Amino acid sequence: MKKFINEAANVETEMLDGLAASHPEYVERLEGLDVIVRSDKKKDKVALVSGGGSGHEPSHAGYVGEGMLDAAVPGAVYTSPTPDQIFEAIKAVDDGKGVLLVIKNYTGDVMNFEMAADMARDEGIDVDQVVTADDVAVEDSLYTVGRRGVAGTVFVHKIAGAKAEEGADLAEVKRVAQKVVDNIRSMGVAILPSTVPAAGTPGFELADDEMEIGIGIHGEPGTSTEKIKPADEIVDELLGRILADKDFKGKKVALMVNGSGATPAMELYILARRALENLAENDVAKTLVGNFMTSIDQAGASLTLLELDDELEQLLNAPADTIALTVK
Amino acid sequence: MKKFINEAANVETEMLDGLAASHPEYVERLEGLDVIVRSDKKKDKVALVSGGGSGHEPSHAGYVGEGMLDAAVPGAVYTSPTPDQIFEAIKAVDDGKGVLLVIKNYTGDVMNFEMAADMARDEGIDVDQVVTADDVAVEDSLYTVGRRGVAGTVFVHKIAGAKAEEGADLAEVKRVAQKVVDNIRSMGVAILPSTVPAAGTPGFELADDEMEIGIGIHGEPGTSTEKIKPADEIVDELLGRILADKDFKGKKVALMVNGSGATPAMELYILARRALENLAENDVAKTLVGNFMTSIDQAGASLTLLELDDELEQLLNAPADTIALTVK
Repeated sequence: MKKFINEAANVETEMLDGLAASHPEYVERLEGLDVIVRSDKKKDKVALVSGGGSGHEPSHAGYVGEGMLDAAVPGAVYTSPTPDQIFEAIKAVDDGKGVLLVIKNYTGDVMNFEMAADMARDEGIDVDQVVTADDVAVEDSLYTVGRRGVAGTVFVHKIAGAKAEEGADLAEVKRVAQKVVDNIRSMGVAILPSTVPAAGTPGFELADDEMEIGIGIHGEPGTSTEKIKPADEIVDELLGRILADKDFKGKKVALMVNGSGATPAMELYILARRALENLAENDVAKTLVGNFMTSIDQAGASLTLLELDDELEQLLNAPADTIALTVK
Repeated sequence: MKKFINEAANVETEMLDGLAASHPEYVERLEGLDVIVRSDKKKDKVALVSGGGSGHEPSHAGYVGEGMLDAAVPGAVYTSPTPDQIFEAIKAVDDGKGVLLVIKNYTGDVMNFEMAADMARDEGIDVDQVVTADDVAVEDSLYTVGRRGVAGTVFVHKIAGAKAEEGADLAEVKRVAQKVVDNIRSMGVAILPSTVPAAGTPGFELADDEMEIGIGIHGEPGTSTEKIKPADEIVDELLGRILADKDFKGKKVALMVNGSGATPAMELYILARRALENLAENDVAKTLVGNFMTSIDQAGASLTLLELDDELEQLLNAPADTIALTVK
């Protein structure tokens, strides 16, 4: 394992300290807690809270700020945050208009966020939730009943965050978030596995000529190991699976080409080129290319499609100002 | 070599097609040329043109847009663009107020940009230039007389770009750009080398317990191969070299923690944490953490310090809207 770290046991806390110290104009870390909140807390709005295991940076702390999240709650690497931790985040950001939790569909995450929601309701805080499950690769997994929530989650942060910033009430913010959840599909691939610092060895093995199709975001193997192919064929396979799952034909869409941490921008753009060729009959209103939801140092990529209506498109393009995504 | 590519010979052109197709709101590719220009060309301003070999993405095309560059000219991977290509870029963006070239100090880049400038002057275009040379690791290198231009170049794009956007004349834009050049220092490290697609093998070899200190951005070896150390000690070494080269003591500065392509954000923030600890006596007015000037799939990082005065700070924080850097 080669990494720029000190003690493996300290990577999460040192990373959060580094993030908070680097971007005081955007975020602060709640004292003594693994919770990142907006430093310019906006009053009188519904608050959005998301999170999950660490290792997905810039998710989720990178999306805390104007027009996106109000708090991010990172657990240990690839591990759900605790209910107490999520509860503290909810209390810190609630301003009387309620809190929407954006949860990626993993058994541990759903359980812990729901426990935190119950704790918050006991204190009179209005809490609701949506659960993202955009990965078309699997119906159930090692960590999930139902589909996994992956990179498409960032579209929920952006769009629901914009709705909340406009001053909408909790039911309206949830409605919009759920509309995004219902209209996103993703699928991923990896050519090199990730290594959890505390484990010290990769999550799975791949030969020099192999790739892992249908990969998740927690270092687990995908659905099949195949011989590596030209980039265009990989895109055709991933996008084919997405298009087979939901009818995007002729629709207005947003496309995300997401890198999983160690994939150069050069390669992401080569993937994007083919994806956009394949979507020539669509109106692709927005394309995002970069590292949005990573798996530490995995070399891989995922494609996400979101079907847009006018409301979602307007909110996707609404202003946002966060560490990892700024829209003027 | 494991990469998401098709034919190695096509990576540059496919990447540029992908970039232009992904972000039509920001850029377009000049037909038949490896030149990326702003799609909303702004009239009546000094134009900024930069470029260099491909493989440094998002540099330089990712910084084409409002408040930064007007054109980017990418050569083949790690290879200077041609004079003709740069000349076409200059002609495409000049609007009668002149063009400033931002050149990284490599013999080939300087020669080709200067030839293009001469060609443009022959057509009556007012062209001037600055040359970045921020890498403190070497005085001369395989590719350079004098110091190499590395990640600090992005600060020149941002700050000189803001000055041009304000409507300043060419002499003023150059003055500000040169002030940045004079006040940036960088130093880099790698733990895994990069692989040029057309070569198919890494640029150098490192053992499992080794790192390369004083690395450049073109896949070449650094100044010394050392045993890998804890992240904090690596930062102390890099920053120590920077601080020994220029007196930043007590000054207002901007810090960039740059990833070289395959370095997870987690590790960049662990490096940033220590860098900011070491700069506790400085006023760090801005910290940028991410992949700004990469070396394809190299796992590495560089630190850059820029001494700020009020003028540079204002321009650094001025609005910008590009693919890779947006400031509201």
